[in-house]
Amino acid sequence: MIDGDVQFDANGRLRHCLTTEGLSGDQVREILDLAESFADVNDKSIKKVPLLRGHTVVNLFFETSTRTRSTFELAAKRLSADVLNIDVARSATTKGESLLDTIANLRAMQCELFVMRHPDSGAAHYVAGHVDEAVHVINAGDGQHAHPTQALLDVFTIRRHKPAFADLSVAIVGDLRHSRVARSQIHALRALGTRDIRVIGPRTLLPAAVESLGVTAHDDIDRGIADVDVIIMLRLQRERMEHALLPSEREYFAGWGLTPERLRRARPDAIVLHPGPTNRGVEIHSAVADGPQSVILEQVTNGIAVRMAVMALITGNAPGQPA
Amino acid sequence: MIDGDVQFDANGRLRHCLTTEGLSGDQVREILDLAESFADVNDKSIKKVPLLRGHTVVNLFFETSTRTRSTFELAAKRLSADVLNIDVARSATTKGESLLDTIANLRAMQCELFVMRHPDSGAAHYVAGHVDEAVHVINAGDGQHAHPTQALLDVFTIRRHKPAFADLSVAIVGDLRHSRVARSQIHALRALGTRDIRVIGPRTLLPAAVESLGVTAHDDIDRGIADVDVIIMLRLQRERMEHALLPSEREYFAGWGLTPERLRRARPDAIVLHPGPTNRGVEIHSAVADGPQSVILEQVTNGIAVRMAVMALITGNAPGQPA
Amino acid sequence: MIDGDVQFDANGRLRHCLTTEGLSGDQVREILDLAESFADVNDKSIKKVPLLRGHTVVNLFFETSTRTRSTFELAAKRLSADVLNIDVARSATTKGESLLDTIANLRAMQCELFVMRHPDSGAAHYVAGHVDEAVHVINAGDGQHAHPTQALLDVFTIRRHKPAFADLSVAIVGDLRHSRVARSQIHALRALGTRDIRVIGPRTLLPAAVESLGVTAHDDIDRGIADVDVIIMLRLQRERMEHALLPSEREYFAGWGLTPERLRRARPDAIVLHPGPTNRGVEIHSAVADGPQSVILEQVTNGIAVRMAVMALITGNAPGQPA
Repeated sequence: MIDGDVQFDANGRLRHCLTTEGLSGDQVREILDLAESFADVNDKSIKKVPLLRGHTVVNLFFETSTRTRSTFELAAKRLSADVLNIDVARSATTKGESLLDTIANLRAMQCELFVMRHPDSGAAHYVAGHVDEAVHVINAGDGQHAHPTQALLDVFTIRRHKPAFADLSVAIVGDLRHSRVARSQIHALRALGTRDIRVIGPRTLLPAAVESLGVTAHDDIDRGIADVDVIIMLRLQRERMEHALLPSEREYFAGWGLTPERLRRARPDAIVLHPGPTNRGVEIHSAVADGPQSVILEQVTNGIAVRMAVMALITGNAPGQPA
Repeated sequence: MIDGDVQFDANGRLRHCLTTEGLSGDQVREILDLAESFADVNDKSIKKVPLLRGHTVVNLFFETSTRTRSTFELAAKRLSADVLNIDVARSATTKGESLLDTIANLRAMQCELFVMRHPDSGAAHYVAGHVDEAVHVINAGDGQHAHPTQALLDVFTIRRHKPAFADLSVAIVGDLRHSRVARSQIHALRALGTRDIRVIGPRTLLPAAVESLGVTAHDDIDRGIADVDVIIMLRLQRERMEHALLPSEREYFAGWGLTPERLRRARPDAIVLHPGPTNRGVEIHSAVADGPQSVILEQVTNGIAVRMAVMALITGNAPGQPA
Repeated sequence: MIDGDVQFDANGRLRHCLTTEGLSGDQVREILDLAESFADVNDKSIKKVPLLRGHTVVNLFFETSTRTRSTFELAAKRLSADVLNIDVARSATTKGESLLDTIANLRAMQCELFVMRHPDSGAAHYVAGHVDEAVHVINAGDGQHAHPTQALLDVFTIRRHKPAFADLSVAIVGDLRHSRVARSQIHALRALGTRDIRVIGPRTLLPAAVESLGVTAHDDIDRGIADVDVIIMLRLQRERMEHALLPSEREYFAGWGLTPERLRRARPDAIVLHPGPTNRGVEIHSAVADGPQSVILEQVTNGIAVRMAVMALITGNAPGQPA
């Protein structure tokens, strides 16, 4: 019922960024390669290219997230776009309105690129299926479904350190069941040919059919991360604790937290990712988060370049794209 | 006590946009003609003209309205202005301060164009009467008094479909008593020569002296909209229900809601306007709001161009204006 | 424990603006002279210079202050910077995070200039001590410690009227004990050579060791302001009243409020400053705040130019600075 087809136009070109599911390896690599060129822009003193000048990017957040909103806002501004921030979670006007009415109105204001976060799985797909050709939608997280730009920046970050995806062993650790990030990471890693993907967490937080995604499941982290090249820690949503799916934070850390001792079970050159913000002492030890194997802040930096690439590409404004 | 004179300078040139009352037909047409040229800008891929570059537009909202704020923000950015959003309804600092102190401070920051929404009728006039020559005020809605840019975008939208205002029959339906929008629409329509304006609503929501504005009043919608060319639906403020001025939403819809059946009583080519956001099933049926006679989304689009025109014109930055 | 050394680089160049303590007269004058050139920009119709084009200024406010945030936002935009506003007081995401994690993340997004307001004294120093060379921090108020840009705009304003600082008598009146503004003013005035600085307020609100700062203390305003050239009124934090440090507002006004009668005790050409927003009838009489000796709105205007100067200077982008 939610699939990736709606994100392509009739010629198979990406016109929305809704999910990493269904992206080919070539399509993922096209985004990553373009992001590499924007990473250079961001290293310069004047971090600006005029690719989206005169365009308006709307950050339409039905869940408040200052951090994610900031990364999209910066990416848009570095492409010289104007940015309109709409925090629907706080907006009285927009609250009573239907999602499609809100979109139709912003569309009528000739806004063409929507970055959308929504608590319901499938919300971005739903919008993408109901807009005209000139509108582009980026899914910045929908319920427990997908968060494609996060997954793309993760594989971008991994590629900079370990480009041979086919040979990598990757562990994803945490609350797999509720994680839109993990779902998107698995699809992106598989598109790039990664064969050994291990998902690790308490049994109650591993989805029943997870192996159908082409991964192996472990509830013992010490065995699960043995000899991996990449460890991706998920952020623990603390509100899950209340619903009795999880033990206390202390027990969680004892069972599945990434400590320096555990990290030694992975390959000596393994890298550690986390989508942030980290809960130090819950899912990750500070010595690991701040340690030499952590690439957590690189992920943040790369996130700007990857989001610039997605914005430019789906709107047809990347260098060399036919108009 | 509130009149339009303060919006003109000594030479009769518009320097604020406070009300449509007192505007001549020529003055309204000047705004609409300029807006036509900006509508072309908004159809282009790069929607930007440099007319207000280096100027700062302050959106000073004493009532939160994401939608209205967004249209002014987009209009300002498409004129290349910088935008400062101040949500006074939420601002602790500014809350205790007097209105004139707030304005004096923003003025001291060399902001010159204020877009102001305020719950009190006359607030924008009051400010306009107390600022120096270099400051321009746009009334984005003051209490139950006026909302001139809404009325201007409405007549702009009507003109694109039916330019012969003298021959039009126009129905305005809803809560006339509390509507700043309706008041401004009536003045704008009359400035353009419209003779047959009918206001329609429950007796309790028709102001006693409404006919002094040059309109006819009806409390029977079926008779009121017979053979009209234009139907303007007003948004129902749901909070009025609590004050016993109105029956239930269901009864309201039965009595004064615009259904497809009722719409058939108007001319076959009649157009339907609504300032948005619509309360579907309360003042308007979805089949009408989304139907072929609806121009509701055109109004939104035109709102950007009309607001650009007002901003450029009153600040003396329209093309061809003497400096 | 909090000192100004951290704001200089190894060559003694200012790279953060944390406090006026420790600034030499030459360093203060360099900022004021640069601000004079920006004041000219702000008088022009197009108020924009491209000195910070492609840079991102982050307004990181752990205490909400619409007014202060607005002045920094305008200053940044007039330097052509992009601005990212983060209202941490309202942000759910950022609330749980440590200060250094928040900064590290924004730094990873390649933001290089942080304007920071924080309720804890020393917060800006703490951050400045933990960031890499490319990052610049402006303290927009930390607890009861410092507010250097306010003090700099105050001496800028004084200099325009009375440039011979060595000969000036300056009175600072109000709640000296809790005022970060007063502390920063005293350091800036002394750096410029002012010898006669008098602090005036109720005994309970005069810090015990205030005279160690090189000022004289008075609890009788009528004697304290006799023959001064400059009177700086402080804003009364009304919440202090509850803690029994202060009498009622009426008693406060009777004892230490600046009335037209009191003002006559100063020199006839004395000027009156106030950081705003004023509590009329509490610390200052309206006839004084709006009178001919008041320079309160000039302070607001000058605040933009001074903040532009600080931003350009500490980032090494002032005209003529080596790259």
